[in-house]
This record gives sequence, structure tokens and C-alpha cells, in this order.
Amino acid sequence: MQMAHGELSVARPGTGREELRSAFLETRAATLKITAPLSAEDQQVQSMPDASPAKWHLGHTSWFFDIFLLSRFSSPVAGPQLNHIFNSYYDTIGAQHPRARRGLITRPSLDEVRAYRREVDAAICGFLDVASDPEWNAAAPLLKLGIQHEQQHQELILMDIKHLLFSNPGRPSYLPEYPSGACMLAARRQAPWLEFKEALVNIGALQEGFAFDNERPHHKAWTHAFRVGRHLVTCGDWLAFMEAGGYERPEFWLSEGWATAQAEGWRAPLYWSMQAPGRWTQFTLTGEREVRPREPVCHVSYYEADAFARWAGARLPTEQEWERAAGEVWPEKGTSLHPMPEPAAAGPGPQQVFGAVWQWTASAYGPYPGFRPLEGAAGEYNGKFMSGQMVLRGSACVTPPGHARLTYRNFYPPAARWAFSGVRLASDV
Amino acid sequence: MQMAHGELSVARPGTGREELRSAFLETRAATLKITAPLSAEDQQVQSMPDASPAKWHLGHTSWFFDIFLLSRFSSPVAGPQLNHIFNSYYDTIGAQHPRARRGLITRPSLDEVRAYRREVDAAICGFLDVASDPEWNAAAPLLKLGIQHEQQHQELILMDIKHLLFSNPGRPSYLPEYPSGACMLAARRQAPWLEFKEALVNIGALQEGFAFDNERPHHKAWTHAFRVGRHLVTCGDWLAFMEAGGYERPEFWLSEGWATAQAEGWRAPLYWSMQAPGRWTQFTLTGEREVRPREPVCHVSYYEADAFARWAGARLPTEQEWERAAGEVWPEKGTSLHPMPEPAAAGPGPQQVFGAVWQWTASAYGPYPGFRPLEGAAGEYNGKFMSGQMVLRGSACVTPPGHARLTYRNFYPPAARWAFSGVRLASDV
Amino acid sequence: MQMAHGELSVARPGTGREELRSAFLETRAATLKITAPLSAEDQQVQSMPDASPAKWHLGHTSWFFDIFLLSRFSSPVAGPQLNHIFNSYYDTIGAQHPRARRGLITRPSLDEVRAYRREVDAAICGFLDVASDPEWNAAAPLLKLGIQHEQQHQELILMDIKHLLFSNPGRPSYLPEYPSGACMLAARRQAPWLEFKEALVNIGALQEGFAFDNERPHHKAWTHAFRVGRHLVTCGDWLAFMEAGGYERPEFWLSEGWATAQAEGWRAPLYWSMQAPGRWTQFTLTGEREVRPREPVCHVSYYEADAFARWAGARLPTEQEWERAAGEVWPEKGTSLHPMPEPAAAGPGPQQVFGAVWQWTASAYGPYPGFRPLEGAAGEYNGKFMSGQMVLRGSACVTPPGHARLTYRNFYPPAARWAFSGVRLASDV
Amino acid sequence: MQMAHGELSVARPGTGREELRSAFLETRAATLKITAPLSAEDQQVQSMPDASPAKWHLGHTSWFFDIFLLSRFSSPVAGPQLNHIFNSYYDTIGAQHPRARRGLITRPSLDEVRAYRREVDAAICGFLDVASDPEWNAAAPLLKLGIQHEQQHQELILMDIKHLLFSNPGRPSYLPEYPSGACMLAARRQAPWLEFKEALVNIGALQEGFAFDNERPHHKAWTHAFRVGRHLVTCGDWLAFMEAGGYERPEFWLSEGWATAQAEGWRAPLYWSMQAPGRWTQFTLTGEREVRPREPVCHVSYYEADAFARWAGARLPTEQEWERAAGEVWPEKGTSLHPMPEPAAAGPGPQQVFGAVWQWTASAYGPYPGFRPLEGAAGEYNGKFMSGQMVLRGSACVTPPGHARLTYRNFYPPAARWAFSGVRLASDV
Repeated sequence: MQMAHGELSVARPGTGREELRSAFLETRAATLKITAPLSAEDQQVQSMPDASPAKWHLGHTSWFFDIFLLSRFSSPVAGPQLNHIFNSYYDTIGAQHPRARRGLITRPSLDEVRAYRREVDAAICGFLDVASDPEWNAAAPLLKLGIQHEQQHQELILMDIKHLLFSNPGRPSYLPEYPSGACMLAARRQAPWLEFKEALVNIGALQEGFAFDNERPHHKAWTHAFRVGRHLVTCGDWLAFMEAGGYERPEFWLSEGWATAQAEGWRAPLYWSMQAPGRWTQFTLTGEREVRPREPVCHVSYYEADAFARWAGARLPTEQEWERAAGEVWPEKGTSLHPMPEPAAAGPGPQQVFGAVWQWTASAYGPYPGFRPLEGAAGEYNGKFMSGQMVLRGSACVTPPGHARLTYRNFYPPAARWAFSGVRLASDV
Repeated sequence: MQMAHGELSVARPGTGREELRSAFLETRAATLKITAPLSAEDQQVQSMPDASPAKWHLGHTSWFFDIFLLSRFSSPVAGPQLNHIFNSYYDTIGAQHPRARRGLITRPSLDEVRAYRREVDAAICGFLDVASDPEWNAAAPLLKLGIQHEQQHQELILMDIKHLLFSNPGRPSYLPEYPSGACMLAARRQAPWLEFKEALVNIGALQEGFAFDNERPHHKAWTHAFRVGRHLVTCGDWLAFMEAGGYERPEFWLSEGWATAQAEGWRAPLYWSMQAPGRWTQFTLTGEREVRPREPVCHVSYYEADAFARWAGARLPTEQEWERAAGEVWPEKGTSLHPMPEPAAAGPGPQQVFGAVWQWTASAYGPYPGFRPLEGAAGEYNGKFMSGQMVLRGSACVTPPGHARLTYRNFYPPAARWAFSGVRLASDV
Repeated sequence: MQMAHGELSVARPGTGREELRSAFLETRAATLKITAPLSAEDQQVQSMPDASPAKWHLGHTSWFFDIFLLSRFSSPVAGPQLNHIFNSYYDTIGAQHPRARRGLITRPSLDEVRAYRREVDAAICGFLDVASDPEWNAAAPLLKLGIQHEQQHQELILMDIKHLLFSNPGRPSYLPEYPSGACMLAARRQAPWLEFKEALVNIGALQEGFAFDNERPHHKAWTHAFRVGRHLVTCGDWLAFMEAGGYERPEFWLSEGWATAQAEGWRAPLYWSMQAPGRWTQFTLTGEREVRPREPVCHVSYYEADAFARWAGARLPTEQEWERAAGEVWPEKGTSLHPMPEPAAAGPGPQQVFGAVWQWTASAYGPYPGFRPLEGAAGEYNGKFMSGQMVLRGSACVTPPGHARLTYRNFYPPAARWAFSGVRLASDV
Repeated sequence: MQMAHGELSVARPGTGREELRSAFLETRAATLKITAPLSAEDQQVQSMPDASPAKWHLGHTSWFFDIFLLSRFSSPVAGPQLNHIFNSYYDTIGAQHPRARRGLITRPSLDEVRAYRREVDAAICGFLDVASDPEWNAAAPLLKLGIQHEQQHQELILMDIKHLLFSNPGRPSYLPEYPSGACMLAARRQAPWLEFKEALVNIGALQEGFAFDNERPHHKAWTHAFRVGRHLVTCGDWLAFMEAGGYERPEFWLSEGWATAQAEGWRAPLYWSMQAPGRWTQFTLTGEREVRPREPVCHVSYYEADAFARWAGARLPTEQEWERAAGEVWPEKGTSLHPMPEPAAAGPGPQQVFGAVWQWTASAYGPYPGFRPLEGAAGEYNGKFMSGQMVLRGSACVTPPGHARLTYRNFYPPAARWAFSGVRLASDV
């Protein structure tokens, strides 16, 4: 989450004080809207160590503004106890409540956490009213960071709530209706592959505009000739893989992936249930329903994505390949806080790049050449997680509008399945 | 929880239809009173696999009446899903939601579970209004059993909530004031030991009156000459054990106990915290406070109790010894649903027998000679847990009034500490 | 392993200096004979944490004489390193090499451990040559204890080697022929039950003669009227249990036993393999062979024994009941170092009491009334294991001749299966 | 271990039939020489799941020739049982004995495994005597592969034996003298950093000459300007890191690395022991001795290497950077079966590149662009391990002579410490 040094010297739309105040308030309101269908009990529970309670997300996103803005430019709202509870992993700031035990914190209550949110909101607005220009210039990048951070947690809340509701024997729905980009059906009237010649390309975010530190610096990379799938892999494709014995044949799998699949008893994507031989349903935010063959497959691990690709005679794209291909449909390099582009319905480039499912790449998550994390606590945002994880690109149906970027690097461990993660294939020429 | 066959043929006070209706309603109301200080979030969370959410306790105790009375004599309130969730461990009745995952069930909500309680209450009362005499005779033992069962869960709720609140970094109190029998201070103006001669004694519950199946049959046992401590071991005694290196010297410990103590890092009873070298505080239902040397020690495991006894040159009493000694202060053999006797302030017998802390015995929990569990699902109540556990006798400050019995056999695994468990010593003559 | 104070004042055959020297040398030679069919590699490996390498047994049994006799009455052979390695669990003597890592000790080699044995043997004999009468009187109980201890390890070696060879994919045999008391076939021409009236009986070892400390003191116990099975449960009986769904029906099992059986995937006794539906073989010290229906079943856990008994409408005997019934066929109370009595072929008492399989009892392993462990390190022999284990009585085909006693209390955790453990039923009258 | 298709069409020294026979026999003899100082017991034991018994290494390397050559071109020596035992991880060939239980296989004995080796050797030589030219052309790449494979296991034997002997409380030495390249002292009379300009470079092995499949294809990669350390990080450097609190300060560590270090209690490299505050010794193949400050540090994990680099204000090199820098001192691209070059004593390039310790890189182990594993079972050699591991480059003092290559890609999980792994730093310009 490093701030580009030159960022604020560039006047860009959307970065003025009032525009940012609006973005802040809209983001804060959006989070509460996401949690509105949930009871205090729903927001209390942590269904696995990787997930967090929705209430904790509400508190943590507030604390982020509190610690990185208010405690530096104004007065912090939180005392030592809230700091302890809502600090996620910033060792530089202090000790943290153990991650796996976030669900035990029944006090403060949801009402108290909401009150804490309101206090932080008011204090931020108060600060915006009175900040001098130098203060504002110093604070603005952190305010943008906090907004992006909260957007990330909006997606996490939906991931975590989906997992919680799935853990309930009654499989209740989050909402009766939910706009699901995962339903973006593949038209498939075009050639399945897009081909690219070898080239020295530019990768990563420019200095101007918002980007996380892990997307920088903008740098050169050599890409060999490759093909990339125009469409995402669908549930129908996945059923074919399953019918071909994909989950029973070790020859398709990485050794570690096979061991994990056996230990966990994987036989289908997460949230799929077999109702009768050959008949599969899928748990969604709107409840249990049939698996739809033309939808992009979702909730598969890197290991499964990799095995599928090998079965299909293909491979996963590197993140450089992905970024080069996705650049065909992205309006402008390095933009941020933009509206998400509509996927070009039948344009010349790849389809379903943003807004459907995150796409696993073949790239281990590591630093770009010349990467430097931000100084201080904010440097812990991304850099210290650069081991044992794989990069995902694009965005998903649960990603907040305007949050996606061409250069965005999402990352999860290769066995993780609760993110909205799917597959786009690639192959050598 | 076997019903004595002859029980109902004996007319006893407190077993009439109206008396039992009153007892039922009082017990049900008492449970809600215990949970009243807790928010929906507090009642949702399970702080460890051994504990259950308070909301689950509310539902399970209702389900017990539903399945053992209404579904047999009337119409059950619960459908298949509630049956699945609120069945604790009755394999004969059906499959159960996994115990360690009870805390994930955010739906039904607390309000819905309370509504379920009210429906069960109404249905039971309705049944009592219309039951024929044969129905009533068949149902009454089960109604009594359900009442006793709910009383057990009243104590469990307090145990579990204490553990949950202790897991909160803010260590909130359950109530500002709570009448704690653990505070029953030892007068200690009398000889510390009571002596008994060898004898063939009668142990266990008679056929008349309520008792769980594990307290029967009433039978003979030979007890050798022994001494039993007049008072409970105090926190001051325990501090002396700690200062003598009790937690660092394997020679006092059972092999298994020592291994557990090392693995868990035990250095003091559960809920004790060292604020400074030599200064200990204790978390209670009324919050964190100083350890009081004259109070009975509480929240120690069997392993610790046994090690303490060896350090003190003594041992724990067998349950037969305990029952024989406690008989000195218990008014009448085999009584049930009686008011708890006031501990005789300075009488000739043992002190603090009931209402302070449960007392670990040296007896592994097993069947009495001739033990027969009840037929059907109710037979799973006690019998199948007769391995790997130790018997505790007496009752604790959190035991509901009237629930204690001279012949009552409580039981926990030897490493358990979250029960209100303490120590009374014994020795050979 | 407490020595009775008055033991040596009683002149008994077999306790004189020369007799004991012979017993010592015979026992030492017998151990080497047991390990003779095994390579250095066989004797090196530890197939599970509960087992020990045969080489370690050879060293440890020597160390026992070294530490309890030579270091007290003469000069110890072992230095600090051997003391560290071959001390099993005597905290009073010093720290120990971790039990689960005994198999990693490739040096000293088997040849060196054998040399250590010879040195200890020579030193013991040398001591016997020169010991004064007071020395001899003090040493003799410890020498007897060491002999009994080594006999226990002779059986352990066979248990552990059987487990090791079973872990080998080739399932090699220990010896082509091995005299197996487990083959003691049941004649079954007599009534299946023996009946006993209620009585106050004497249990445990007298002061005279050798016995471990846990068999004492000799004391009174009340036994209710009971029946005990004349014969052991057979493999044929067990097959009937399996065919009746014994391993699939929780209603027969203790809760803890059922959980263990599911977690471990138990479907038959240890060492049984299904070669085809309904056709079972059994791994033995002489290799893999058919399950023989008339042989006593062996290598079942307490949990399985208990479930079988419940399925059969019976129960396991308490150790007091067992001892009373076995007394019918045992020549003399409190004898030790006696030849094992031939099981009375068709006498009036129980059959297959000794020399077939150990018999699980319903009694948790605990101290007898008035139990006192020996002072000093020898007090750790038995007492500190008195939790979490169940008593077995009798002896097995692998128990050394002369080692069995009427009052002998063997003990294992309820999930253990690698001992030669079987089942004798009991029931209430 | 893919064979380059064009390899055999190129006539190169060292690939003739007689030369390869000699290389084969020398390699086979070298393995036996490495195990010569070890007893049958030493060669039996597996000190941790990651390690294998030396006896198993002897069998597995023979099996490799058996299955990949003899069973294809002649008659295999091994039957089904040896195939089961000595198959490491080739699912295509068949099921395998579980890796973590290799140490339980006491039969076949060491003598029998050695006899199996001799039979395989004779059969290979017999085949070489009679093979037609087409057979020879097909077999030669597999013979070379088998030789390289056996060399890898020679190093593994030394790694595993070191771990085993360290697990022995007596800390015995493997040999009194052992030529240790880890002792290659740093002269350090030159500038510490070597600088490289940005460039499009060639990475990986050419088609000619032997290389594993994971080193191919030869391909282009863009490297940014960078510096690389001329010397390896020394034990003295590491002591400074430790004294600066390197193991206590999370700010230097990856999140996963910090968690591992805490869980494992890391306070120094593996095999280091603190004898007194500030005085450290190190276990080596020649026994326990002082830590020498000018030696390269060895037996550190990737996590530690990475944390050290961050503390030092530097980073680890990517494998492309490493290969480019090492190319300065390597005589010829793509050579194999060559004698290892003497490290240029004070030449212009990097020092201690080969023959001291393996050097962790910042590169996750993955496929090169265009990577294709060999068809059939041999394709499982490398490709299926391309997740969750980091690349190490160079070679170590225990690497067999002639085994190192400029393009060699070694790989271990980031927490592994039992390889002879050390650190060379890099930094951005």
C-alpha cells in the first residue's frame, strides 16, 4: 500500500478534498449496507480461522482510519483495548488479539462497534473541515488507502458470510436476490484463444493514480509468445473434468495439491453438493441452487485450477501474461477509483476479465523488481505476505464497483477456496 | 437417568401434578433469568469445544421436553432441523450437528429459540391439562427428568459463560453481584480431620425419590477405616503448594497429569492471573478480583487435585468414603427436589459439603454393581460416558437450589478445569 | 513394585542366594533367546511411540539392575549417557531421552548394548559372590524385582516386534514356529457360566512372596452375586459380533470408544485383514494365517471388549470378581516365581485363565485401599500410572513362564490393542 | 529430468558407451563409499519424515535403474514388493510404501539391499555388453539420468545421516575427517558487491549436454540492474544478526517465516548449540565444534535467509540474477558431467559459487516458459513439485564432484533447514 511519492503533484479528477470526502462516506455507507441483512449473531461468528466476524470487519476498517489518520493528524477514538482487538497484524503498532479467536469477542457489542464507526466517521469529517493544506496533502494518500482497504474488507465480509451461512445446517441465504457477476455467461461464439507474440512489456502501476505498493514499480518484463483463453472456464467444463476422473487421477496434480485434495476429501468445488449421482447443486449468497453449466466456475483452489489446466492440455497464465492480455480491454493504464469497465460483450479481447471471478495465475506472489514497502506500519500491509501464496488477477462479482485495476494483485494460499476464485487458461504457442 | 419402577407408587410431597407443573415453570423461568444479563452475541458464541453457546442450551433443554414428552404423549414442536441441531448426543434418536460447531449456528436466532421455548412450555402445560391418569403416570418421571436435566444445564451455562467472558481481552463481568458459595469461608476452629471406622455401608440412591440412573442401585460397599478433611482446601493452601514448587515437581504428579500440565503450561488454577510476582488475581462471574486465601480453591483439574493431595501427604477420598462422610450432614437418604440443606455452621460433620465447589474423588466414573441404564434413548444420558472420567461429589455455588443430592455423581475428564471443582482431602488411618 | 517388609523373614523355596542367582541368569538368558531371531536392524526400530526398540529393551533391563543394585551396593557400569538413554521414566533418577525417539539411537550399537548386558551380568554375579548377609538381605528384594521387571519386558519385546513386523509390507514372521497359548481351544462342553454368591472377600497379595506394590495391601472387598464366563470369547464369537454390525452400531459402545473406533477406522481386531468379503486372516508371530473360530480373540481394545459384552447382553468382570473366580483354579494365594499352573482341562472352575490372553476387566486402574508406593525412585514403577488405564488380569501366551500370579494387575489405556488382550464375560445374577 | 530430444545427435566427450559404463560404476561405488562408515543400524533409521534411511537410498537408487532401464530394455531384478518399497513417488508406476514409514522396513536387510544393488549393477553391465546401437541410443539418456539421480541421493544420504547423528544424545561424528567446502573461508580483500546493468539475458540449459527437465528450455529473461554479494554470508555475519535481535524482531521477517520461527523455537541455525551465553558450537559430520566466524553460514531456512537480508538492508537474488552473476566464473554454458571448477581464488567474479553451500534465491520454484516434463513416469521427477518451494543455486561441500551446473535448480520448502543451505545477498542498484 505504498503511496507513490509523486502522486499528489498530479492533479487528477477524484482526488480533491470534497470528492474524497464523498468517496469516504460512500464507502463507509456501503459497508453498512452489506452487513444490513445480517443479525448481531450473524456478525459475531467466525466460521474458520481464515475468516473473521463481520462485526470485526466493521471495527477493523474503522480502526484503520483511526490509527493511520486520526492518531497522526488528530486524536484517535480508540483506546488500548480496541487497538488490541482491531489491529489485524501490524506488529509495529502493537500486540494483537489472536486471529483465530476473533469470534470470541462478544463485547464490544455490534451496537458499540457501530457507534465506534460513527465516531470515527465524524472525526474524519471534522479533520477534513479543518485540515491545513499541508496536512491535507499528507493525509490524502492515507485516506485513499483506507478507502481501498475498506473495499477489500467489503469483499471479505461477503466471502466470510457465505462460508458462515454454508456452515449452517439450514443453508440460509444472505439475500433473496443478489447481483452475481459469476453468472456472466460465456457467449463463446468466438475463437477460444487469443494469441500474443513475444515482447518486452511494461508491467505494474505507474506512479500516478492510486495503487497498492505491491503493484509497483512499473517495470519491464519479457513475455514469450503465448495464448490466453478468451473466456473463463465454466461449470460445464468443470463437470467434464470431474466426469473424466479429475479428482481421482494424480497425474494431473501437483504433488502438494494431490496430498491436500486427499486430506480434505475434495471431489468438487467448494460449496457444491451432490444431491444425487450426477446432479450437483451450489450454495450461493441467494441460497442453494442448481449448478449452471455456462457460468464461470468459482471457489476452486489454485491446486484444482492447475490440475484442471493440465487435464485440459493447457496451463495457467503468468501474471505478466494476464496483465498483457487484459490490457486489451482496459481503458487506461494505472487508473484507480474508476468505474469498472463493462466487459466488452463480444469485442476482440478477452471476456469476463473483471466482475466475474478472480483468476488464478501461475505466478507465486513475490516482490516486483525494485519493490519497496512503505516505511512504518503501513509497510506491513502487503510485503510480509510475499511467500507461500499465488497471485490472482481480475476481480469478482463481489468486488466493490471501482475497486478493480488492471495491475491489481490479489493473493491467496494455493489451498484456499473461499475466495471467489476461478480459472482462465493459457498455453504456449 | 433411569426412572425407578416403583417410584410413582410412593406418594411423596412434590410429585403431584400441580406441584410438578410449578416446578417445571419455575425451572424454565430460572434458565431465562440466568441468561437475562447476556446479549444475543454472548449467547451465540462457543469459546471451546467442551462448551456450548447459551442459546444452544436454551434450545437443547426445550428439545429435551419436546422429544421425550411431547413427541411421545402429544405432538412435537420441533421439525427435523431443530431436532438435528438440538440433539446433543442421542444416537438412538438421530444424527447430530457436530458438537464443536454449535457456535456456528446463527440461525435460528436467539429470538426464534426463545419462541421455541415458549411453544414447548405451552405444549407441556396443555398436555398437563388434558393428560389422563395413566398418561400422567407415564409422563411424570420424564417430566422430572427434564427438570433435573435443565437444572444441570443452568450450571453449564454459567460455566460456559464464565469461560467465554474470560476469553474476552476486556474480561467483562457477568453480573456486578453474584452470590458465590465459593466464598464460603472456612472457620477452621475445629479438628481438621474426621475419622471413620471400617464398615460395610450402603451406597447410592434408594428406589423412591428422584435420582439419575447412575446413582442406582442402592448397594453395599466395604469401606476401610479412613479420615476425611472437615474443610475444603483453600486458595491459601493452594498458594502454599505453588510456593513449594507444586507445579514444577513431577514427584507429586500422576504421569499423565504431569504431561498435561507441561503441555498446557499450568502454573495455577484456571482463571488465576499473576499480576506481579506473588500477587494473584482470579476471574469470577463478577469480574477480576484478588485471590482470597480463605476461600475454597476452585477450577482445578483432577490431576492438580491429586498432586496437591500427594504434596500434602494425603489423598483424595473415594466416592464411597465421601458419601459416607457427607451422610453425616445430609438429612435424609435418597431425597430429591429438596431444598439444599444449609451447611451446618460448626456442627460435628464435614463442612462446605454442598453449595461451595464440587469435590474431586479418587473414583473413576463407572457403573455401580447391577447398574442398568434406562431403555431407549434415555439410556444414553449417563451410561455411555462411563470411561475416562472421574467422579465429583457435592455441589457448587452455581448449582441450582434443590438440585444437590447426597448420592449425586457428577463427572468430568481428569484434565477438565472449567467446572467449579475443588478439593477435599482424605487419608488412611 | 513395593517390597513387603516382612518378605525376607519368611524362608521360602526359590529365595536363597544360589536360587536367585540361577533365576537371574536364566531370565537374562531368556531375553537374549527371545531376541535371537532378530537382526540388528529389527532390534533398532520403534514402530510407534508406545513401542520400544528391542535393543532398547535389552539396555533398559540391564540398566535397571545397574541403577537399583550396582549403583547402590557396588559400582555402576553405565555412565551418564547410558543412564540418560536407558532410564525409562524415573524422574527421581534424572532426565530421560524422549520416549518417542528411542528408535533414533543407533549408537550404542546392538553389539555394544550386548556387551553392556554382559558387564552388568558379571558385576551382579560378582556382587553375589562377595555380598555380606546384611547386603544380601537388602539386595535380594531388588534382585527379585529386577527379574520380574525383565520378564515384563520379555513380553513387551514380543508385543513390539509383532507390531514392527506387521508394519512391514512383507509381513515377515518372527519364527516359523511359536508356541501360542492363544491357540488354547475352548472345549465348551460345560455350562458357559460360573456363578458366585455375594460375599466379603480378600483381594490382593499377601505380605509374603513376591508381588508388585500395586497388588498390595491384601484387603477386604464386597462382591455382589455375579456370573463369570467359563471360557474366553473366541474369534468365532467375534466374527458373529462383526456380522451383527458390531463395529457400525453406536448403541453398543461407550461414547469415547465409538469416537476412537471411528477415528481409527476399526472394523476388526488389530492384526486382522480381510482378504475377501467374509474371509479374514490374522497376523501372528509365525506369520499371516487364517482366523480360527475356536481360538480366543486377541488384540482387542477395552472399548471393543466392552462393546462386545454389551452386544452379548453381558458385561466385563470387575477385577475383584475376576480374582475371586480365578482363585478357584490357582493353587495358592500370593505365590510367586511359581510354575504357571496348567489350565485345568475340564475342571470345575474357569478355563483359559492363564497363558492364553490377558483379560480386560471393568475396573479402572487405581490404588488399592491403603496402597503405598515404595520410597525413592522405585516408587515410580507403578503408582504414577494410576489414571486413564484399565486393569487386565490373567496372563498371555507370550507371558514368561512363572511370571503370572493370581493377584497380578496388568494395565493399558482403553484404546490400546497391541497387547495380547482378550475378553472374558461376566454378568449380574 | 526431461531428455533433450537433440542431445544424442551431438557427439560429445563423455557420452560414449564405455565412458558411461565407467561413470555408472564409479557413481555406484561412490554411494557405497559414502555409506561405508555407517552400521546396519545407522542405515536403518529415519530421523524425521523428510529424511530417508540410508538403506532406503541404496535400494531406491538401484530401483531407479531397474525400473527405467532394465524393465524397459532387459529384465527387471525387483519383484512387486521391492517395487512397492523403493518407489519414491512415481504414481504412474504404482502405489508406494508411505514415505514417513520408510524407517520401519527392517526387511529386506542391509545385506539383502546390497545384494540387490549388485544384481542391478551386473544386469546393467550385461545390458551394456549386448545392447544394439538403437537400444543404446534410447537407453543412454536414461542411464545418464540415473547417474545424476544417484548423485543427488549421495548428497541426501549425507544430509539425512547428519540429521540422524544429531538426534543421538551422544552426537557421534560421521567420520573423524571430512573435506568440508563449507569451510571455504572468505578472503574479503575485494569490494563486497558486484554490479550488473539491466539486460535481456539467456537463462537455462541448452539442448546439448545433460540437464534436468526443469532447467529447460533455454530462454530469454529481462533482468534489471542489480548488485550481488561477492562472498557468502558468514557465521560471523550471522552472529551479528543474532546479537542484533534478529530472531526476536518480527519486522525483519515474512509473516509465515515469523510464525514458523516462533512455533519451532528457532534462535540460531540448525545444528548450532549454545554452550554458554554467547558461545556457540555447531554439529558437523566430523562432530561438535566451535562456530567459526569466517565460514559461510549453513543450515538456515529460506525464511531466515530472507530475514537476514532484510536486516542487512539487502535482499536475496532472483535465480536469473544468480545465474547471470555465476556465469562470470563458469567455463561453459550447459556443460554436464564435468569436473567442478575450482572457485577462482581472487578472480573478478563472485566467490564460493560452487562447493560451499547452496544459496537460497528469491525465486519460487516454478516452470520455465515453455517447460515440458518428460512423457511417462519420468515426468514426475521434477514437475509435480513446482509449488510451495524456493529455488537454491550453486552447490555444497557435500554435492558430488561433477554434479554441479550453472543452470542447476535445487529446491526446498522455505522452512527446510537440513540441506546445506546458505546465503548470498543481492540488492537493487
